[in-house]
Amino acid sequence: MDYQQLIEEVYQEVQAENLKGKVADYIPEIGNVNPDQFGIALVDLKGNVYGVGDHQKPFSIQSISKVHTLTMVFNVFNSKLWSRVNVEPSGDPFNSIAQLEYEKGIPRNPFINAGALVITDALCSKFEHPINEITDFINELAGATCVKINPEVQISEKNHGERNTALAYFLKSFKNFNNPIDEVLDVYFSHCAMEMSCVDLAKSFSFLANDGYSIFADRLVLTESQSRRVNALMLTCGFYDEAGEFAFKVGLPGKSGVGGGVAAVMPHKFSIAVWSPELNEKGNSVKAIRALELLTDKLAFSLF
Amino acid sequence: MDYQQLIEEVYQEVQAENLKGKVADYIPEIGNVNPDQFGIALVDLKGNVYGVGDHQKPFSIQSISKVHTLTMVFNVFNSKLWSRVNVEPSGDPFNSIAQLEYEKGIPRNPFINAGALVITDALCSKFEHPINEITDFINELAGATCVKINPEVQISEKNHGERNTALAYFLKSFKNFNNPIDEVLDVYFSHCAMEMSCVDLAKSFSFLANDGYSIFADRLVLTESQSRRVNALMLTCGFYDEAGEFAFKVGLPGKSGVGGGVAAVMPHKFSIAVWSPELNEKGNSVKAIRALELLTDKLAFSLF
Amino acid sequence: MDYQQLIEEVYQEVQAENLKGKVADYIPEIGNVNPDQFGIALVDLKGNVYGVGDHQKPFSIQSISKVHTLTMVFNVFNSKLWSRVNVEPSGDPFNSIAQLEYEKGIPRNPFINAGALVITDALCSKFEHPINEITDFINELAGATCVKINPEVQISEKNHGERNTALAYFLKSFKNFNNPIDEVLDVYFSHCAMEMSCVDLAKSFSFLANDGYSIFADRLVLTESQSRRVNALMLTCGFYDEAGEFAFKVGLPGKSGVGGGVAAVMPHKFSIAVWSPELNEKGNSVKAIRALELLTDKLAFSLF
Amino acid sequence: MDYQQLIEEVYQEVQAENLKGKVADYIPEIGNVNPDQFGIALVDLKGNVYGVGDHQKPFSIQSISKVHTLTMVFNVFNSKLWSRVNVEPSGDPFNSIAQLEYEKGIPRNPFINAGALVITDALCSKFEHPINEITDFINELAGATCVKINPEVQISEKNHGERNTALAYFLKSFKNFNNPIDEVLDVYFSHCAMEMSCVDLAKSFSFLANDGYSIFADRLVLTESQSRRVNALMLTCGFYDEAGEFAFKVGLPGKSGVGGGVAAVMPHKFSIAVWSPELNEKGNSVKAIRALELLTDKLAFSLF
Repeated sequence: MDYQQLIEEVYQEVQAENLKGKVADYIPEIGNVNPDQFGIALVDLKGNVYGVGDHQKPFSIQSISKVHTLTMVFNVFNSKLWSRVNVEPSGDPFNSIAQLEYEKGIPRNPFINAGALVITDALCSKFEHPINEITDFINELAGATCVKINPEVQISEKNHGERNTALAYFLKSFKNFNNPIDEVLDVYFSHCAMEMSCVDLAKSFSFLANDGYSIFADRLVLTESQSRRVNALMLTCGFYDEAGEFAFKVGLPGKSGVGGGVAAVMPHKFSIAVWSPELNEKGNSVKAIRALELLTDKLAFSLF
Repeated sequence: MDYQQLIEEVYQEVQAENLKGKVADYIPEIGNVNPDQFGIALVDLKGNVYGVGDHQKPFSIQSISKVHTLTMVFNVFNSKLWSRVNVEPSGDPFNSIAQLEYEKGIPRNPFINAGALVITDALCSKFEHPINEITDFINELAGATCVKINPEVQISEKNHGERNTALAYFLKSFKNFNNPIDEVLDVYFSHCAMEMSCVDLAKSFSFLANDGYSIFADRLVLTESQSRRVNALMLTCGFYDEAGEFAFKVGLPGKSGVGGGVAAVMPHKFSIAVWSPELNEKGNSVKAIRALELLTDKLAFSLF
Repeated sequence: MDYQQLIEEVYQEVQAENLKGKVADYIPEIGNVNPDQFGIALVDLKGNVYGVGDHQKPFSIQSISKVHTLTMVFNVFNSKLWSRVNVEPSGDPFNSIAQLEYEKGIPRNPFINAGALVITDALCSKFEHPINEITDFINELAGATCVKINPEVQISEKNHGERNTALAYFLKSFKNFNNPIDEVLDVYFSHCAMEMSCVDLAKSFSFLANDGYSIFADRLVLTESQSRRVNALMLTCGFYDEAGEFAFKVGLPGKSGVGGGVAAVMPHKFSIAVWSPELNEKGNSVKAIRALELLTDKLAFSLF
Repeated sequence: MDYQQLIEEVYQEVQAENLKGKVADYIPEIGNVNPDQFGIALVDLKGNVYGVGDHQKPFSIQSISKVHTLTMVFNVFNSKLWSRVNVEPSGDPFNSIAQLEYEKGIPRNPFINAGALVITDALCSKFEHPINEITDFINELAGATCVKINPEVQISEKNHGERNTALAYFLKSFKNFNNPIDEVLDVYFSHCAMEMSCVDLAKSFSFLANDGYSIFADRLVLTESQSRRVNALMLTCGFYDEAGEFAFKVGLPGKSGVGGGVAAVMPHKFSIAVWSPELNEKGNSVKAIRALELLTDKLAFSLF
């Protein structure tokens, strides 16, 4: 398989379709991004990197970082964690508080905001300097000092963070939150404000295509079983309220962010990151979703 | 891989664990079944059949038949169908009517009751004798005249069918129902009352492990892309409110029924059917779920 | 107090305001009514009748008949009834099925559709010919043979009755329904299709202004305590999802119907019926609501 | 009417019934109260005070203070206020956050927690020293320097205030909150921690029985129309998820608090306060509710 040719074809075809969406505008720093950017990077199991378009340009990875933070506590808090957060897809929007009320403070899964806050809270219990630890961890996975926290995005997230703050207090009212709320939110807004290129992001997801072993970190990051479970979670819960549609059309485990990025893996084949800022109404990048759909069609394989 | 040895090991280990659940009791005909029965059948891509325990004993496949009926209309009504039923996992119980109200008569997916009723309605539009067609189709997939409709179960389903009738009228009020309600319900209750053995059920699912081609029917039942999509749907929506948990622990596309059966596939490897009547509180067979978890652990592969 | 002058003033002022709404269009027979009609009738405790505008023209009373049917079983089934239907306002639309699911088949109150169906079911248990009984009862309350069931409306209600049928089956699935569904629905659609003029309607509500004693029937229809409770229910639940607003602005117990009618009482003073077909978005007559608001302002008294 | 004899009879009969409930335990300061206390005070339109039992003993009025704070802004912000908070009864618990999500940040009414927080926020916009203003206002209404803020209760409310804090941040995320959250919560927890006796509480509600005129303050506190509207709101929304039941059985506008107090009015007759700490499962005092039911039965009048 010539991956470079493949992603170039996909890139051309998606560009030709001239798809339109809407850049996320909940904070100005995200809203002001040039909407026409589009990049794809693919990393195979040997560590070869293939790229096209804006694949080397850093962008705000936003919720994609929730896969990294989950991995950091999955490793250690394995069983305890799953009493604090469920693994079921949510039929509701990613920042819904209603479901949290009906289910008595146990978030549906670690990728909706409430669940990711529980994960970040667990990280704050585990590490003295959680932000540094997250940065170091992702750098290690990517085999490069690549992660930068954008201070404007971070501050802006915080200034528009009422809803996440409400979720944190609500979790605390159910005793599902152990650390000071401001501290955890700081870490949360920091990791949502991280910037990486498609290349580095795809590299940082490589271990999930490889049964938990990262060739860039040169170590087993998760056991095979844990790695499979992270992939299962991404498949059922990685695309907000569109997870079923993505599984149906694309069939790869992946995670999207409102910055327009999507990172996905084809187990035992490759990891891939696609980025383009314009989103569909469910909050997923129109071009990234379409690119992955074309890619799996051309490869004639998906998970299924 | 020696599949016969594998399933025997799994069978022994599950029996040793002595798991307990509760036989479904919404109709007496299901409730009176001997709870200790347990069988496993596995069919590889060459059509070899492996079995252990009560694998040749017919049981009520119930909702597993929804995969067969979906396949029958998937083929033909492809795009139209997806305007009538969504492909997203449901956070609510399988027979919930609330979600149908919030989402204005479009069921969340074809495996919750409301969605399956839409599928059966589509079947009634397509065929003059839909029950015969379903029976013939499953027999063809299994390569044997094996399907029997249990008349006591069928009548009992009908006599306890107020909730499904309510769903049908509710769908009709949203104009998402085209045929006479009684007619469609008769077909629905008939295919829920079908009985098959694990062996025949695993054979009837074989095409989903084989990119849509059935070696028993000797024809392409679904295109590769359609077949992948049915698998994606089973993975995200096949286990009621426990789909995420099953994907997380087992990682195979599958479908369960309240009769205690589960049919699943490992794409490009095998199809499998497991049956044991006692259910967990989410309505899935405790022994069947556990057997599939052990099996994928032993094989050290899942989808992910 | 010169009631005739009062209602004429109110009539003029409302007409001058030229309020607009939308005639109910769920069935053609209701949708085709002349939207400009407007009438008011007031009946004092001595039985004097005051009227203005189209106060003698029969119109479809629709849900207002639910007060009459409730009265018929209140009298007899008193305590039993309240285990089958609650007395709390509903935050949801009148025909919502979701709330019925959350509250396990016990409707929130007797004026939402699900609750009214339970009342009609109780009537069918009590009387051999319930439709005749309802007609006779309302005629008796109005002191005149005035009630007519419009056959076109009745048939049309039935032909568009999928949602109410769904509610009935749903109630039955919770064992909160005792009679054959078709039979009860026939009675339900019949009493919703009843036609009366404002004058007769106001007379039929007179007993609720008079501690349960009807001067037209010349008998105690409800005890004082029961009569107060029907009024309390109308105040908290009589205007669909606008009950609070009506209590806030008008402050009288009353019941509205999608035909554009409103019947209300000022306890120990008078009963009143207002009719005009155009509805606001909550399904209540814009002119009738406004007329009652002006009336209580001018009288400088309400319940409170 | 000999009110003294009346409330003594009611007091005796309720005591004889030996009703049991459960003292609120969400904060220790409320939970440790002697559960057997029980007092009634009634104030007629001339200002005569009648009392029985623990009617002079101060208790935590909790949510009853929401009527006072609403009155303070009703007067001034009249129309603006009703774009920020609705007047409809809520089918959900008083501290539900789900409904706030469905209704996009507009609380259902000013007596559920979310609505009361909006009211307190409006107070903070209006006054520089809102706590002093509230205290002064209630003292004026009661014609006595009677209000004391219990510092232990206030601190404890704050320490257990995660859910109210979540509500405040959630309101802010919908731009329905104007002042710093900590500031508003301080005021909120302060007025919930106020202590008064039944006598002073009944006096402070007297203006609502008197078309807005307080004989103790010797001034018009609300216009007649405003006063009627506060009463309407209490009737439809004053008893959490039991408002319909209270209207049905008692038929008086009133407001309850988790401290076990209930204040109510019979317009143009009297105001009344009843207190006893044990609550039913809906959070209303069992003895207070029963006392008011007996009282209206004996008087043979209610609103209706």
